[in-house]
Amino acid sequence: MKQHDNSIFTDAYFMKEALKEAQKAFDMEEVPVGAVIVSRDRIIARAHNMTQQLRDVTAHAEMIAITSASNYLGAKYLNECTLYVTLEPCLMCAAALRWAQISRIVYGAADPGEGYTRVRTAVLHPSTEVIPGIMEQPCAELMKEFFLNRRDLKN
Amino acid sequence: MKQHDNSIFTDAYFMKEALKEAQKAFDMEEVPVGAVIVSRDRIIARAHNMTQQLRDVTAHAEMIAITSASNYLGAKYLNECTLYVTLEPCLMCAAALRWAQISRIVYGAADPGEGYTRVRTAVLHPSTEVIPGIMEQPCAELMKEFFLNRRDLKN
Repeated sequence: MKQHDNSIFTDAYFMKEALKEAQKAFDMEEVPVGAVIVSRDRIIARAHNMTQQLRDVTAHAEMIAITSASNYLGAKYLNECTLYVTLEPCLMCAAALRWAQISRIVYGAADPGEGYTRVRTAVLHPSTEVIPGIMEQPCAELMKEFFLNRRDLKN
Repeated sequence: MKQHDNSIFTDAYFMKEALKEAQKAFDMEEVPVGAVIVSRDRIIARAHNMTQQLRDVTAHAEMIAITSASNYLGAKYLNECTLYVTLEPCLMCAAALRWAQISRIVYGAADPGEGYTRVRTAVLHPSTEVIPGIMEQPCAELMKEFFLNRRDLKN
């Protein structure tokens, strides 16, 4: 676990930052998923889902955050970084995180439908540590609210 | 099968175009994978692997081609398109192609190490047809040559 004593930089602290990103997506009528990538207690990338706005299925929060963090570091590998994301990554994002050899993944809500854990074969890089369920409730609620609103719009 | 009688637009025809892209990657010392996306016998996106140049693990040929084709079409879904790619897609790209609901995937060489077929769970969209092994030999040879060269460089 990365939680230091007496540090404000807990997993929940950074997950709140990811949630702010998810809220931005929500406000843009995007599926509300947000992510930040942290290196040595500093946020080096922030992103939220932009698939509607960019009309691009690859524009998930995690994918944008990976590209952004790599640009920032000038390095392909994120092996001293933690990704915080409000929703369990899908298979595309999990496999991208494998390529990036990220050290840690911390996620909020589970995604039984599209989350990468639906696949039994190891998807992530063997050196990646995973912490599920941080701030699970607010992360899940933002998703629920979004899809509830959309159903209302359709009726 | 999409092979029309008397048409030059066979799967091999478009795979040769993907191979040209792979050759460009090779010449740039990128892992030589190339892709084109075709809609109604027209190439609407071309791309090759750029992970080294962009220092971005997400910059696989298929990912760039998906984004490019979506930009061209102004649409997130590629459900009347065929992707031609010289190497079996990895899990990230296969999952992206699932999100894109692409109609057909035609690939050249198999990739037993990182190819998506290493996962037993269904990765692709259920409506996606897959044609493996088109122009397998030249596709595989370009990869072999690339890694052989790299080994020589290391010695």
